[in-house]
Amino acid sequence: MAFSQLQAAGKQTSENGNSNPNPIPLTRDVSVNVSRSLSSMDKAMETSIASTDAWRALQEHVAEIENTHLKDLLADQGRCEAMSKEDMGLYIDFSRQRATQDTIKKLMDLARAANLKEKIDAMYAGDHINSTEDRAVLHVATRARREQVICDDGKNQVPEVWGVLDRIKAFSEKVRSGEWKGATGKPIKNIVAIGIGGSFLGPLFVHTALRTEPKAMMQSRGRTLRFLANVDPIDVARALNGLDPEETMAVVISKTFTTAETMLNARTVRSWLTSQLGEESVAQHMVAVSTNLKLVKEFGIDPENAFGFWDWVGGRYSVCSAVGILPLSLQYGFEVMEQFLSGANAMDDHFRETPLESNLPVLMGLLSVWNISFLGYPARAILPYCQALSKLAPHIQQVSMESNGKGVDINGNVLPFEAGEIDFGEPGTNGQHSFYQLIHQGRVVPCDFIGIVRSQQSVYLKDEIVSNHDELMCNFFAQADALAYGKSREELRSQNVPDYLIPHRSFTGNRPSTSLLLPELSAYTVGQVLALYEHQVAVQGFVWNINSFDQWGVELGKVLASRVRQMINQSRNKHRFVNNSDGFNYSTTRLLNKYLQGKTQLLYPEPRDVFPAELLEHNPL
Amino acid sequence: MAFSQLQAAGKQTSENGNSNPNPIPLTRDVSVNVSRSLSSMDKAMETSIASTDAWRALQEHVAEIENTHLKDLLADQGRCEAMSKEDMGLYIDFSRQRATQDTIKKLMDLARAANLKEKIDAMYAGDHINSTEDRAVLHVATRARREQVICDDGKNQVPEVWGVLDRIKAFSEKVRSGEWKGATGKPIKNIVAIGIGGSFLGPLFVHTALRTEPKAMMQSRGRTLRFLANVDPIDVARALNGLDPEETMAVVISKTFTTAETMLNARTVRSWLTSQLGEESVAQHMVAVSTNLKLVKEFGIDPENAFGFWDWVGGRYSVCSAVGILPLSLQYGFEVMEQFLSGANAMDDHFRETPLESNLPVLMGLLSVWNISFLGYPARAILPYCQALSKLAPHIQQVSMESNGKGVDINGNVLPFEAGEIDFGEPGTNGQHSFYQLIHQGRVVPCDFIGIVRSQQSVYLKDEIVSNHDELMCNFFAQADALAYGKSREELRSQNVPDYLIPHRSFTGNRPSTSLLLPELSAYTVGQVLALYEHQVAVQGFVWNINSFDQWGVELGKVLASRVRQMINQSRNKHRFVNNSDGFNYSTTRLLNKYLQGKTQLLYPEPRDVFPAELLEHNPL
Repeated sequence: MAFSQLQAAGKQTSENGNSNPNPIPLTRDVSVNVSRSLSSMDKAMETSIASTDAWRALQEHVAEIENTHLKDLLADQGRCEAMSKEDMGLYIDFSRQRATQDTIKKLMDLARAANLKEKIDAMYAGDHINSTEDRAVLHVATRARREQVICDDGKNQVPEVWGVLDRIKAFSEKVRSGEWKGATGKPIKNIVAIGIGGSFLGPLFVHTALRTEPKAMMQSRGRTLRFLANVDPIDVARALNGLDPEETMAVVISKTFTTAETMLNARTVRSWLTSQLGEESVAQHMVAVSTNLKLVKEFGIDPENAFGFWDWVGGRYSVCSAVGILPLSLQYGFEVMEQFLSGANAMDDHFRETPLESNLPVLMGLLSVWNISFLGYPARAILPYCQALSKLAPHIQQVSMESNGKGVDINGNVLPFEAGEIDFGEPGTNGQHSFYQLIHQGRVVPCDFIGIVRSQQSVYLKDEIVSNHDELMCNFFAQADALAYGKSREELRSQNVPDYLIPHRSFTGNRPSTSLLLPELSAYTVGQVLALYEHQVAVQGFVWNINSFDQWGVELGKVLASRVRQMINQSRNKHRFVNNSDGFNYSTTRLLNKYLQGKTQLLYPEPRDVFPAELLEHNPL
Repeated sequence: MAFSQLQAAGKQTSENGNSNPNPIPLTRDVSVNVSRSLSSMDKAMETSIASTDAWRALQEHVAEIENTHLKDLLADQGRCEAMSKEDMGLYIDFSRQRATQDTIKKLMDLARAANLKEKIDAMYAGDHINSTEDRAVLHVATRARREQVICDDGKNQVPEVWGVLDRIKAFSEKVRSGEWKGATGKPIKNIVAIGIGGSFLGPLFVHTALRTEPKAMMQSRGRTLRFLANVDPIDVARALNGLDPEETMAVVISKTFTTAETMLNARTVRSWLTSQLGEESVAQHMVAVSTNLKLVKEFGIDPENAFGFWDWVGGRYSVCSAVGILPLSLQYGFEVMEQFLSGANAMDDHFRETPLESNLPVLMGLLSVWNISFLGYPARAILPYCQALSKLAPHIQQVSMESNGKGVDINGNVLPFEAGEIDFGEPGTNGQHSFYQLIHQGRVVPCDFIGIVRSQQSVYLKDEIVSNHDELMCNFFAQADALAYGKSREELRSQNVPDYLIPHRSFTGNRPSTSLLLPELSAYTVGQVLALYEHQVAVQGFVWNINSFDQWGVELGKVLASRVRQMINQSRNKHRFVNNSDGFNYSTTRLLNKYLQGKTQLLYPEPRDVFPAELLEHNPL
């Protein structure tokens, strides 16, 4: 069987709500919509950004920069001043980037050549800049102020946004006050948010940032929020372990209500609930974040308890929609989450209104394009000196890599350069004891250092030279300069380091970083940081002229997984192994058979639900 | 002040036990030791590996491989068979690497040119292959069988290793049985392991792998193990939250007992204990993993309760020593941990004895050198399809990046190529909804897929087509082939995909991966996987001829942090800001002052310990 037939046999489900279940063309005439969404600027951009004078000027400029060292650039006070910005309470220092004010000027030329300002405006205007899916990109609307006007197809979306937010507020108050009761009459204190990808990483990032913040801690006292993302049954065991179903509510988060992992997990959790609380308990213990009210109802969830979002919110940009705000409001209360939305909104206004030269996401985005496309650094480390930001890097990993990991530009032309980057990170100081060795003496990896002025938690011991937070922050300041300056062989010789050790103990320095200083880590500043990174990613994508808002790359794996699923099911039912006519290559056939022969038969002659025993301990019925 | 003076003013403390506190030469004559550790093979390697015929042959071979596509290579059944290996119950499939059997042959030539076998033998023989620190590299001894002989400087280390393991066994049994009581007479059920870097990530990886494993779960019922790594006070708050100090024991893990973060955290936890249980409680509630018995005793811990390790165990290779085995035995019992050690030991024997052509770590290491140094792929994704392996990637990130992120070879010559790689990863299927978009359609990132035949936990719902674990594993099989085959424009056209979408929905394929299938995830197989990756990293380092076992790159940041610490302390005590004569550059001066002016003064006129209030709830006295 030809491989293409294998692919065609599969079904596609998409976490991000692509409504097209299989690769058959849309019946409506898309060509009209496509021309509508391809604005005149796109037509002008049909030549690659890499062919523009501005791009070439930057390429030529690389040689000048290669002759500089940060230790010299940092001695220029005027440059240091020009390359630090302060706005909205945030302080951001770009002076340790391998760039001069001339580089910035040239990057601004590139921004103009890429029509950056027009693209930003088009995004806020509701143009269907996500042209391959014919959608607007309006995650900024999910945190807009009530009085703002943000339109898709000429219709203001903000009232609908607030319609959902108001319902979330009312619902979360009911649940938190105990007015809403579970099937056995108890109030709900545990929330299990079932979702994957964009329905998981953003909410997890925000939850991790808030759970040690004093105001949010007060609001969440006695309450538990867990996330169930992976379809691995181990994740089910972990997520439900120790929870009393009588006091637990599950929030099922999937726009289409067809995401494979999420729906299997939802059915698993439903089974866990009903086996202990009865079939009728679903309505009291499960709610949904979805637009597919039909499937929600068929699942057994009251459509009244379905909270929607819209096609113009991409999954990885959805944490400010019901996707994040519902579970997080149940945990922290709506008031805290409003602060989070406000912070993101403040950054949105900044991004839209501020001239490019002082625009923080624009500067971050342009400098990262400089690092990636001109200095040739393919990776970026996100290094928050704050344990509460430990889930920032995994979230931005998705936002950045899923947005910009593209092989063609927005018009479908194969890119003559590599877009996107490889993002990773761990909180400081942990990373210093892990991978910083490589960043100091191996490959060059530009770093984003994030520091906090006032910690969420204070520890200060009277005999210590500094508080624990000060101890943490010493490193935030020191690492950026260590990377920038390095340590020369001359310095080591002057310290009488033995000759044979000198090469090993030398540091080339000249390694770029950006330092971002937040006044505190509150719901508000978490919102600011989120939007800062979202918009940085958009800037990169606009400059590279790619579509940062689709994700066709996730489709192929799903199609093939479907074929494997059928094979495994057949194999179990027909007690046979995979053979050469099943359409898998020889390696995969062997690998599949190793798997199939290693697994015991189902132990139960009659079909029945099988659960880890520890999850059924409560069983009050 | 010259920057070098700033550096000299600082003190170095090292997580990994470098005994040298400041950059002054050792007083003893190191040249003798150095020549002893530079064996004849190193002298022969004074020319770079990149100058050898074997390296050049591989460089030339790249062009041949560039003309191939995995979809064709995978059609060659003989190749598929040759490039899959099975040993020790593990199944590993290399056939989706962009390599032919000729490539493997040329890689074996490179291995011989690099004296790989001799270097492996030298490691097991206890030669001081860590030449810059004049140390042997014998983490294999930490999991050796009792009767094995593994020598450093001619002295068998295995009896000492088992001396410590036997003490750990006895001690953990005492604590777990309740024979050991806390200061108020209660048994200990919570363990807080205080350590960072190698004293954290390895143990966390193993703990995460075991905590959902049924046998280990039974052994750890009612017990809690937490890790406190970051000096961020937020991590203290998280680690101690909800713990009753009467039932809690802290294990302080630092070879020198001077690691800044660990010791500050240890003093913090000591204060938490004594403020609630009295000064005398330290002996009942704190133990140490360290070789510095003097400082252990000064801290207030009974040296009887200090468990040692040795200079020939590097931090990132130390999980099989007391560093991991003590806290993990307290949680899971020594018997489970013996299984873990056995698994690692089995892989050690395999690594030492198996001919290169069938040697799993050798094949993995050579293929990754092929990917990094010849095909030019700087990153590697570690993608375990198992939620219990969610901490594998962070641990290997340290093992790999701290070992091989070097700029010079073992003789101090600047490398003419980039060693090391950028490692990252998330468990599947989560990663599919995050960064796989980039891996499918953006940059090429070689992937390690890890799958499990029998899951630790079973969930199977009677109306489902497959079990939850099968659903997970469908993706494990599908993703590797999706990356390898891609999807062509012709295929899309034949499926009537609209023209404008075809470029966006095309997949170039030809993206390499390795698939590793474990029979189950048990303590034993966790040990096997750990050692497999440790030895892969060593193979890479041996081929590149670098010292994978030192980490001088972590020093500079510590020196500078020390200077900042002094500055912050001065600033608080003398109520002044940083000025131009303090020796920091203009940008750092401004950044520091933003920090200093933003922080409130200490609120307490008298020095006293300050703690998050929630951590002092128990206060039974």
